[in-house]
Amino acid sequence: MDQRFTSALLERAVDEFAKLPGIGRKTAMRLVLHTLRMDVGMVDSFCDAVRTFRHDVRYCRVCHTICDTDMCGLCSNPQRDRSTICVVENVQDVMALEATMQYKGLYHVLGGVISPMDGIGPGDLQIESLVERVAHGGVSEVILALSSTMEGDTTNFYISRRLAAFKDVRLTVLARGLSMNDELQYTDEVTLGRSLVNRVPFIGN
Amino acid sequence: MDQRFTSALLERAVDEFAKLPGIGRKTAMRLVLHTLRMDVGMVDSFCDAVRTFRHDVRYCRVCHTICDTDMCGLCSNPQRDRSTICVVENVQDVMALEATMQYKGLYHVLGGVISPMDGIGPGDLQIESLVERVAHGGVSEVILALSSTMEGDTTNFYISRRLAAFKDVRLTVLARGLSMNDELQYTDEVTLGRSLVNRVPFIGN
Repeated sequence: MDQRFTSALLERAVDEFAKLPGIGRKTAMRLVLHTLRMDVGMVDSFCDAVRTFRHDVRYCRVCHTICDTDMCGLCSNPQRDRSTICVVENVQDVMALEATMQYKGLYHVLGGVISPMDGIGPGDLQIESLVERVAHGGVSEVILALSSTMEGDTTNFYISRRLAAFKDVRLTVLARGLSMNDELQYTDEVTLGRSLVNRVPFIGN
Repeated sequence: MDQRFTSALLERAVDEFAKLPGIGRKTAMRLVLHTLRMDVGMVDSFCDAVRTFRHDVRYCRVCHTICDTDMCGLCSNPQRDRSTICVVENVQDVMALEATMQYKGLYHVLGGVISPMDGIGPGDLQIESLVERVAHGGVSEVILALSSTMEGDTTNFYISRRLAAFKDVRLTVLARGLSMNDELQYTDEVTLGRSLVNRVPFIGN
């Protein structure tokens, strides 16, 4: 697109917006022009929120999730079950699991999964600190809650090897099976096969 | 989505991004977390560009397009044909027409079209200043280059009435017809009908 901007300020703002992932130049233009319909104070607030987040972001020193202090609200909460650690890829996964309200243990955010294709090895992830947490004692279960992809499976396998020495720590993974409201005929055969193998007793409810 | 943020800074940044049009909370989250992969300097540059644009934006006092000075580069360019004014809705239209490299006259940015449904009347647009420009003299043609919608047609009609007194000013509209590479069978009948009525002599090329 051969855009001839009548304003260098406009062009610069569009350029900056278009650097964000999934935002092309047309969308960037629309977003920048939208700011003209916002109060100056609202735009300042937007910019300040983004700037402050980037400058002041911190990671919990225990579970490495994004937080505002030295230790996150989950790790510092005395109500949480300290004997269970749920290993996840990122902060969105923590939020997704918290939204289920089914989990009362702690988390450990790896910061990704092992992916040789993307040049991500075990050393790039928070695996060493997970081993240290388990070695520190008091952990009875580690739930591996990674994506069901090849990279996720590889990471699960690697972690299981690193934690093999801790015989009294139970390693579990999330159940695979049908999603709620899934229709059988449209479910892929691997998922369907797993849901058959791992079938559970029926409890009328 | 019941998101339980582990960081208030993260939540605030996501909230701010999600206020932008077409950006939902999941996209906002993705964009905010993407900033963590950007240098602090890049994020500062992004915020500064948006803030500066909003604070320092100016509109050309002649044609009302967005520019950085009192008069835009088009209006102040002595090479442009001052006898022709092309009336458009917004700055994107100026850029689109400039990209064609087929137009050497000046522009007049209305800032929208008359749309009673959206509460936009003639007084909300730069129509009065257009009449003043024409009244000032030296204009031989006004091109109405608005969208071919009901609102665009209404605005064309309103402007034509306001300029009716200037008998020596020619009013024109952009040609309607087939788009490049349009297939006849898929062209809507109004466009096809117009392209037939307004047919032009064939010039082999």
